[in-house]
Amino acid sequence: MPAQERTGIWLIGARGSVATTAAVGLLALRAGVTGGGGCVSELPAFAEVPLPGWDDLVLGGHDIVHTPLEKRAEQLAHAGVFGHSVFSAVRSGLAEVDAEIRDGYHPATHTGAQADAAARLTADIRAFADRHDLARVVVVNVSSTEAPCPHLPEHEDLDALEAALADPARAVLPSSSLSAYAALKAGSPYVEFTPSAGITLPALRKLAEREGLPYAGCDGKTGETLLRTVLAPMFSARALKVRSWAGTNLLGGGDGETLADPVTANSKLESKARGLAALLGDDVTAPLHIDNVPDLGEIKTAWDHVSFEGFLGARMNLQFTWTGYDSALAAPLILDLARFVTAAHAGGQSGALTELGFFFKDPLGSDEHRFAEQTARLVAWAGAL
Amino acid sequence: MPAQERTGIWLIGARGSVATTAAVGLLALRAGVTGGGGCVSELPAFAEVPLPGWDDLVLGGHDIVHTPLEKRAEQLAHAGVFGHSVFSAVRSGLAEVDAEIRDGYHPATHTGAQADAAARLTADIRAFADRHDLARVVVVNVSSTEAPCPHLPEHEDLDALEAALADPARAVLPSSSLSAYAALKAGSPYVEFTPSAGITLPALRKLAEREGLPYAGCDGKTGETLLRTVLAPMFSARALKVRSWAGTNLLGGGDGETLADPVTANSKLESKARGLAALLGDDVTAPLHIDNVPDLGEIKTAWDHVSFEGFLGARMNLQFTWTGYDSALAAPLILDLARFVTAAHAGGQSGALTELGFFFKDPLGSDEHRFAEQTARLVAWAGAL
Amino acid sequence: MPAQERTGIWLIGARGSVATTAAVGLLALRAGVTGGGGCVSELPAFAEVPLPGWDDLVLGGHDIVHTPLEKRAEQLAHAGVFGHSVFSAVRSGLAEVDAEIRDGYHPATHTGAQADAAARLTADIRAFADRHDLARVVVVNVSSTEAPCPHLPEHEDLDALEAALADPARAVLPSSSLSAYAALKAGSPYVEFTPSAGITLPALRKLAEREGLPYAGCDGKTGETLLRTVLAPMFSARALKVRSWAGTNLLGGGDGETLADPVTANSKLESKARGLAALLGDDVTAPLHIDNVPDLGEIKTAWDHVSFEGFLGARMNLQFTWTGYDSALAAPLILDLARFVTAAHAGGQSGALTELGFFFKDPLGSDEHRFAEQTARLVAWAGAL
Amino acid sequence: MPAQERTGIWLIGARGSVATTAAVGLLALRAGVTGGGGCVSELPAFAEVPLPGWDDLVLGGHDIVHTPLEKRAEQLAHAGVFGHSVFSAVRSGLAEVDAEIRDGYHPATHTGAQADAAARLTADIRAFADRHDLARVVVVNVSSTEAPCPHLPEHEDLDALEAALADPARAVLPSSSLSAYAALKAGSPYVEFTPSAGITLPALRKLAEREGLPYAGCDGKTGETLLRTVLAPMFSARALKVRSWAGTNLLGGGDGETLADPVTANSKLESKARGLAALLGDDVTAPLHIDNVPDLGEIKTAWDHVSFEGFLGARMNLQFTWTGYDSALAAPLILDLARFVTAAHAGGQSGALTELGFFFKDPLGSDEHRFAEQTARLVAWAGAL
Repeated sequence: MPAQERTGIWLIGARGSVATTAAVGLLALRAGVTGGGGCVSELPAFAEVPLPGWDDLVLGGHDIVHTPLEKRAEQLAHAGVFGHSVFSAVRSGLAEVDAEIRDGYHPATHTGAQADAAARLTADIRAFADRHDLARVVVVNVSSTEAPCPHLPEHEDLDALEAALADPARAVLPSSSLSAYAALKAGSPYVEFTPSAGITLPALRKLAEREGLPYAGCDGKTGETLLRTVLAPMFSARALKVRSWAGTNLLGGGDGETLADPVTANSKLESKARGLAALLGDDVTAPLHIDNVPDLGEIKTAWDHVSFEGFLGARMNLQFTWTGYDSALAAPLILDLARFVTAAHAGGQSGALTELGFFFKDPLGSDEHRFAEQTARLVAWAGAL
Repeated sequence: MPAQERTGIWLIGARGSVATTAAVGLLALRAGVTGGGGCVSELPAFAEVPLPGWDDLVLGGHDIVHTPLEKRAEQLAHAGVFGHSVFSAVRSGLAEVDAEIRDGYHPATHTGAQADAAARLTADIRAFADRHDLARVVVVNVSSTEAPCPHLPEHEDLDALEAALADPARAVLPSSSLSAYAALKAGSPYVEFTPSAGITLPALRKLAEREGLPYAGCDGKTGETLLRTVLAPMFSARALKVRSWAGTNLLGGGDGETLADPVTANSKLESKARGLAALLGDDVTAPLHIDNVPDLGEIKTAWDHVSFEGFLGARMNLQFTWTGYDSALAAPLILDLARFVTAAHAGGQSGALTELGFFFKDPLGSDEHRFAEQTARLVAWAGAL
Repeated sequence: MPAQERTGIWLIGARGSVATTAAVGLLALRAGVTGGGGCVSELPAFAEVPLPGWDDLVLGGHDIVHTPLEKRAEQLAHAGVFGHSVFSAVRSGLAEVDAEIRDGYHPATHTGAQADAAARLTADIRAFADRHDLARVVVVNVSSTEAPCPHLPEHEDLDALEAALADPARAVLPSSSLSAYAALKAGSPYVEFTPSAGITLPALRKLAEREGLPYAGCDGKTGETLLRTVLAPMFSARALKVRSWAGTNLLGGGDGETLADPVTANSKLESKARGLAALLGDDVTAPLHIDNVPDLGEIKTAWDHVSFEGFLGARMNLQFTWTGYDSALAAPLILDLARFVTAAHAGGQSGALTELGFFFKDPLGSDEHRFAEQTARLVAWAGAL
Repeated sequence: MPAQERTGIWLIGARGSVATTAAVGLLALRAGVTGGGGCVSELPAFAEVPLPGWDDLVLGGHDIVHTPLEKRAEQLAHAGVFGHSVFSAVRSGLAEVDAEIRDGYHPATHTGAQADAAARLTADIRAFADRHDLARVVVVNVSSTEAPCPHLPEHEDLDALEAALADPARAVLPSSSLSAYAALKAGSPYVEFTPSAGITLPALRKLAEREGLPYAGCDGKTGETLLRTVLAPMFSARALKVRSWAGTNLLGGGDGETLADPVTANSKLESKARGLAALLGDDVTAPLHIDNVPDLGEIKTAWDHVSFEGFLGARMNLQFTWTGYDSALAAPLILDLARFVTAAHAGGQSGALTELGFFFKDPLGSDEHRFAEQTARLVAWAGAL
């Protein structure tokens, strides 16, 4: 990556918990008031990779809410996601980021063709790049999970999709995919950090390839699923047959509320279930719940109960409880992804960056879910950048 | 490995829970009344490796107690380690194994030089090989954990050691190491499945190399430590700084009683601690307890609490509870190790088989503790046999 | 209670896990091959209460399946609920109990008026009493949980109910309530051990009072709810405000299958939720799940996560995991209930036995859910019998 | 209690975490910036008891460290025990409390007879009472746990004790007991909130009775032991035989450091063990650990594993994890105890206040450990004040 180049990170859902924590973190890293804990790209293994520095990254984004970033950050500090001293140190910087946030697309308030909305989103990204003289803008979706997206024939074919987008009577793309479309039209790499449709529609993937743009997704792997992809290979390697793997997730925050809607939760549950089946086969009983427990605030707690069979049929079990701040787990990965995608884009890579599967519950373009193997692939790939 | 060759497995501690379960398992596998669950060597990854078949393995061993194998097996069935139907199916076979068990070495009852004791043990192994026309006998120590062994200069030098062994006034080797010495003198590969000194003394390792014999150890990795070597690399790969990793082990059975002695427990605790420090560094607070809880019978339960620091210093934690039958977890690994060591010996390998680190808490000749890496090494090594 | 009197226990669902375990237990107690562990009525606190002895109890019942009791008991022994030696000791006795089991009522196979079915059930109970010269027969429902019962006006009024029962075109009572009706018509006290409607319908309760018969229910309190009614008062007594109490239940066995049906599960979930609200108020977030996990067999595991607020708003939490054999927890309570109800009936008590709330998730005629208070009430009441 | 009367609370260890949190809490309650959560005495059950109001209580105390209360409170806010807004609201009030803290007794720095030290401590308490025109001063020991106190004959007899105290060559009382002696000489009721010897020595108890002073103790019941005394009676009431009850406590803060010393930890472990034995008998295997895990800060986590036997010998288990801020759990109880002891003193009670056993692991003058019974006794006793 040429020296002095600057890269933009454009966050869809820029005022949410994850985006706010990422902004606080980037400013804190730049100010030297925190270390690189939680940032994969800061590990010694990646010391030689030509990644952009913290000073080379500029934040902006879309959102449909207008709570000032500073207020959101104060709430997160109060909830214990980071310290009040960190908040104080980055307060003024947050106002600058705030000034780079534009109104996002909302199907309920938009009138006219989706193409017009997309053009507006694209223009926002381009203007951001121009304002800051950015070599590129990496778009990352960290907005609320959408309900599963009904399949339409236009999702398969780019020409048909663009024709439909131009029709004011139709709304063929969910918000996440409209954002992905707009990003690609702006020449931006795209990262889908949620289980929403985003860039996963075939027509959009073709567009990315045509434009020579890299992309990655889906659904950041930060807690229960991370553990599952670490533990499941252990059972396989030791010939221990997993018979059931039950899970319950308790979460507060906005995420809890969003996922309290059973239709929306389904997106997340499906994304989680796919990994387990890929690792252990389809014959594992695997009930899974996501509960909205507002009083937990920004904390997420998962309990998993794994029942397995060993030698001579012996029944044994493993239980774990994982308790973490969802935003603190996700935010550094946003920065990591932006850095790795930047290096890939600078290096001329396009299409699905399968080696970034390390970061995702449902890795695009890859069926490797085993975490250790994903780690090895990431390290090897990054080393070759 | 030439066809029709038969291999002996000579178990030190042949009447203990692990050995008995291994015997029941081998007989059950041979009889087709159980599948290969829990047996690593039965995984598809090893299908092409020239391992001895279940019919090619013959069991014998040393022990200092005289409880008939059949009675011990009945107790284990009663305790739920395996079903009564399995027990019934293998009952008569156990009597045959019983007939191949000889009196072990016990420092309290032995008189005369340790060399004489060793010669007797060696003769037992050779006679077993002759009786059954065995191509080799793999000796595996599954006897009770010994107290840590005080260092003596003779442990460093084979000549000095043999001189001391010949002196009736001295007892320079702990039981496990005397057994290892006797095994090597009998031309047998040796596996140290406990945290006892066994073959780890430099003089014995030199003897193994001189005799062209392979060996492996130490201390089977079956539960809490297995999980630690699976989970710790996840924290590292995600740049999550582990601050403390506390553990408590509750165990009944003979193992619980042995390890209730704090001096003996130290062997186990040191073996466990080494792995964690190797994986995460020395600055992790890691209190660790082993409690004797007789009413748990053959069940072992471990609780671990891991506190870690993420992005912006966020404190989070993981807890797990692992509940298993220790014997059911260990026994198949005994069969696996005997098979892999047989193939290595047949293939002319000698010295420390570092690729078998997969099976051990404290892998001899290797400082690789990460389980996924150990798995990959084992598969690659076995594939080349 | 007059000496020499004998009491029958008539189990609805007499071939189920709970009933079978109760039968095995009663026979084992009588044979002296087990102690009174798990039997509340055997505690010293009740030593002076005129309860029937184990030899004074005779078992019979209704069921709609025909698996021999002996076979079911063998399965339970295999699943670890009790030992094989217990099973062997009671095997022949089980055949005698088996001979006292009659076909139960099943709405799908019954033709004709429900009154006819009830008459047949009543006749079965009376014949049982005659055959064994019983002073009374206590009927206990331990059959599968039914879906919540839709409210009908006939449930309020006994005359209207009996008119409807006589109408072949209608089926106004769920199976459990038909059984309760038949029991009362046979002059039998009735215990509702499930969350099904049973005797809870006002018309039936009036019938019981009119006939001078005691009854008790609903829904045996054996695991998660038991703990909740023990722990919730602690939080209250210490002025610790519970903010959320999340629960997940994993169960195999027939119960798991029955409760995998969300409609049926609702009966159980409602019964569980009522207690928590009664203890802690309505403003506690309390998601609750019941999952069918067949590989757990007869084992039931519950995980609860309680988040509470203390001094100066400090947030703290308690988690527990309860792992038990559902049948082993429920079965002795069946025997206890039969004994206590017998003493109450002999003592001339009728109507809801509120002091037996100790045994139930949803105590009939009482809103006291606190376990310690229930214990004190039971002891005081029994002492006065 | 006469209106307008003011009561002093004199804390031994006035700059520790518990004392500081109590001070912050009292000031916050007085300022109306927090509710009475965690304060037992604020429950409706005690609404009619003549307890002193928050405005009627004045804080002072002894300590051997000099860290300003304000600084300690800031650390506790940073550690999450209470919010920064609470800290800001009480900051100035803390300086006033700070001005009422005097140097405590430390055996290592004191020269001369212990009687002289006691006289100085007594004078400090009296001067405090005079300065603030207090009707009484309740002394509460919340200083660090001491090592178990060796038994001396002087501990049995008051005259012998006072003779020994006057001897400059001897040091017959541990610090906690010297404080208790000084308190009684100042006419103060005394509460022993730690497992140290304090007032438990027979000579001191006699002194209290002679002076007509009430006292209470020992060792605040705030976490693991609280749960044990809630749960153990459940097992008993259900005739479930507890076979083992293992516990591990992880704690940071100063408490963790103090209890990392095995000799000191013994005081706490003995206090904890006594309760369990009293509740369940002596035949329960009950290993118990306290580990110092500094990175946990003010958080205390306990894991307990209870194995029990039910009907027909079925083995089942309960595990729980309790995670709380030790100071937030203990501090309100200090205020509660001061209020209840005040009312008792005003009402003319003296000697051991056994009804306060509700608050203690090792209740002085009572062998009732069952929490529900303790609750009932407290409510009844307070209602009669």
